[in-house]
Amino acid sequence: MEVTNRYITIKSPLDDEEPKESDFELKTSPLALSVSPGSSDVIVKNLYVSIDPYQLNRMKSFSSSHKAISYAAAIAPGDEIDAYGVAKVVASGNPEFEKDDLVVGLISWGEYTVLKEGTMFRKFDPLGFPLSYQVGILGFSGLTAYGGFFEVCKPKKGERVFVSAASGSVGNLVGQYAKLFGCYVVGCAGSKEKVALLKAKLGFDDAFNYKEEPDLKSTLKKYFPDGIDIYFDNVGSEMLEAAVENMNTFGRVAVCGVISEYIDARKRAAPNMLDVVYKRIKIQGFLAADLMNVYSDFISTTVDHLRTGNLHVVEDISSGLESFPSAFIGLFRGHNTGKKMVKLADE
Amino acid sequence: MEVTNRYITIKSPLDDEEPKESDFELKTSPLALSVSPGSSDVIVKNLYVSIDPYQLNRMKSFSSSHKAISYAAAIAPGDEIDAYGVAKVVASGNPEFEKDDLVVGLISWGEYTVLKEGTMFRKFDPLGFPLSYQVGILGFSGLTAYGGFFEVCKPKKGERVFVSAASGSVGNLVGQYAKLFGCYVVGCAGSKEKVALLKAKLGFDDAFNYKEEPDLKSTLKKYFPDGIDIYFDNVGSEMLEAAVENMNTFGRVAVCGVISEYIDARKRAAPNMLDVVYKRIKIQGFLAADLMNVYSDFISTTVDHLRTGNLHVVEDISSGLESFPSAFIGLFRGHNTGKKMVKLADE
Repeated sequence: MEVTNRYITIKSPLDDEEPKESDFELKTSPLALSVSPGSSDVIVKNLYVSIDPYQLNRMKSFSSSHKAISYAAAIAPGDEIDAYGVAKVVASGNPEFEKDDLVVGLISWGEYTVLKEGTMFRKFDPLGFPLSYQVGILGFSGLTAYGGFFEVCKPKKGERVFVSAASGSVGNLVGQYAKLFGCYVVGCAGSKEKVALLKAKLGFDDAFNYKEEPDLKSTLKKYFPDGIDIYFDNVGSEMLEAAVENMNTFGRVAVCGVISEYIDARKRAAPNMLDVVYKRIKIQGFLAADLMNVYSDFISTTVDHLRTGNLHVVEDISSGLESFPSAFIGLFRGHNTGKKMVKLADE
Repeated sequence: MEVTNRYITIKSPLDDEEPKESDFELKTSPLALSVSPGSSDVIVKNLYVSIDPYQLNRMKSFSSSHKAISYAAAIAPGDEIDAYGVAKVVASGNPEFEKDDLVVGLISWGEYTVLKEGTMFRKFDPLGFPLSYQVGILGFSGLTAYGGFFEVCKPKKGERVFVSAASGSVGNLVGQYAKLFGCYVVGCAGSKEKVALLKAKLGFDDAFNYKEEPDLKSTLKKYFPDGIDIYFDNVGSEMLEAAVENMNTFGRVAVCGVISEYIDARKRAAPNMLDVVYKRIKIQGFLAADLMNVYSDFISTTVDHLRTGNLHVVEDISSGLESFPSAFIGLFRGHNTGKKMVKLADE
């Protein structure tokens, strides 16, 4: 059987500006839903695809991301865009996979993906949870939050934690893990509704709307009169500068994302390095891929918290192939709350 | 016996500009060279006093340094300026010290210092070395270089190390320790003569004069075609930005000093945080005071290297009380080579 596979790609590199609908186009190509003899390909139907800000770096002509790690390599115009997600096997030349198996790994912004041997995908057990959990809380967003917080920040109970983009896919989980661990947590987000969610539902001790704060240094001073011990940074720029100024001795900054710089390379943070020296601050970049050593801890702790109802899942799911561009663009305009993904088909 | 103690102080806070001779004045006060009954004071005659750039932060109205640690507290106009150095006891009310003992610790920019109980000073054994070694290579400069390199940078043999202000008190030792450990080391300094010293005498693999390099990013690319693993930062600003751009995956930056910011708070580094994330770079501020856990290793290793002649001592000694201002000012104009100190008297 042959189908017409529809997928989304970029028309040209997306350099130094916010992405917009016209940067993307829908393409089609014929796809046989069977595997040639001797091939080890696995053909999958995509169900849920993760939408992540870092993909913007891949869409640029040049970015530090391109050489860093395979899943952050450059995406050329016209190419399929690979992304983390959940899919169902429709045909397999690989003896380890058979029709109707559920897999998680690098699929694509399309209806179907041909998974080559040696690329990142595996079968999984949903453990009784919705499939979408594999994309967010039990996927890379969860691992990034868990490993970034526990391994990079090395928290102690009672420490004071600040999280930016706190209603985002990673930030909301960092805050929740930090609270469950016994830290004092303040988050910032970009709307009144998001701030209310952090405080009322996710258990943050406090939260504020950064768009209403003209002087972030004073704002952080107000929310952290005793200083910040840990800053989980998803945004960079002025927020990083303000956090460093308000940091305590031996404070730690985990740099997870720099969304300010993704859309404007000139928006660089210039933190006060005298603070870094005299307060012995550590600023550490990291990627989830380096945190596989805590993967089994992450899964067991997270599953426990989910089952007891201590951890809340915040998902923001768009539907249908056509929604990829707006879902992605929305990340840079603060439209999403929690884990953004696109649902392409029912299980 | 009473003497007239002469000492140097500042006339007013030194804010946001290079220090100059007229910022300082010589003061005098009568000093009895005997201790009142019941007092535990130790009165010392100062022999060698360390001259360090960080003292400029103490002389400002406001600095991150002031609250950090006692030896970086603010210095008010008119006050004695405490500084690390070597002195000889002339009178003691403390049973642990007696006349003619040599001590090392926080003395002052003056001819005599009254050391109060509970302040930082102790007797020492010169181990057959000149007394000046206690101020530099066997003092805080040495500990900063040794601990900063081994504990903060955590080097592996064969790694590529870049040192800024490499002919300075700390930088020259970092480069020498790194070479002796088995790293590839490039330093930068501010004159042809300093560059020659690094290459010809101190064993650096290469060195360059940053004043002749209009584009530091390209310069570092040229000297490190395979990237930088460790950057020992004494200067901040554009050099830090250029180093981060040229850093390898899992690179480490030890931020020891930020001399660019000491003299101009606007000269802040704005390193590319995308590099920090994707290359998983760690930027870590530190102070020698936190490195006491390696003190005995530092002393035994350094003494061994000194006795075998593997480690070269570079000192830059001014003579006499009147030389304090010019010795200090010279640090910010690149006048010193190696450890800067003032000698006040013979042993």
